[in-house]
Amino acid sequence: MVFEYSRVEAEEVTEEGARGVRVRWLIDRRLGAENFAMRMFEFQPGGHTALHRHPWEHEVYVLEGRGVLLSGGERHELREGVVAYVPPNEPHQFRNVGSSTLRILCLIPAAGCAGR
Amino acid sequence: MVFEYSRVEAEEVTEEGARGVRVRWLIDRRLGAENFAMRMFEFQPGGHTALHRHPWEHEVYVLEGRGVLLSGGERHELREGVVAYVPPNEPHQFRNVGSSTLRILCLIPAAGCAGR
Repeated sequence: MVFEYSRVEAEEVTEEGARGVRVRWLIDRRLGAENFAMRMFEFQPGGHTALHRHPWEHEVYVLEGRGVLLSGGERHELREGVVAYVPPNEPHQFRNVGSSTLRILCLIPAAGCAGR
Repeated sequence: MVFEYSRVEAEEVTEEGARGVRVRWLIDRRLGAENFAMRMFEFQPGGHTALHRHPWEHEVYVLEGRGVLLSGGERHELREGVVAYVPPNEPHQFRNVGSSTLRILCLIPAAGCAGR
């Protein structure tokens, strides 16, 4: 299964505390992927997720834009080529601090894919 | 844990049938990631993996360059923004058909991370 990311619809993230964030579920159980899922998040300038935590990890790769990741009590700069690992249960927040779209890949294990 | 991908050493892929391929294990058990691993593969022009198969899947995102993926008996073009899901046990091969580096993210479940 091979396709352009843009062929997957971007859905508004409606979680409380999130603003200006869309997600594309690129690879998940619909394609047969049982172990982990690949999502792409797109943050408008000023957009951000909630500062939240959950029992599963994130594996992140930054594709474009300028952002920050609050994680482990620290503020990390995000730009193209930056990799981030957010361990299970760690409070974290992503935020676009640039003037263009912040685009990241964010992968999670099946445990975090409830309903997908 | 947040870092530039380039801070992770690129190792030559020595698997039989592979040529001109390097891999960076960006996120794996060394960082505490127990469920799946994020690797970056860099193919020199003409570089390729073996045509091979294994019991775990690949989740792939193409970062730059021009390549092909042989999978499912078909030839798929790879370029920036292309997503690929290679199911378990499907024979597959990646090849750089361009004149610059082909760079992809390729993630696998823990079952494929023997020795890491």
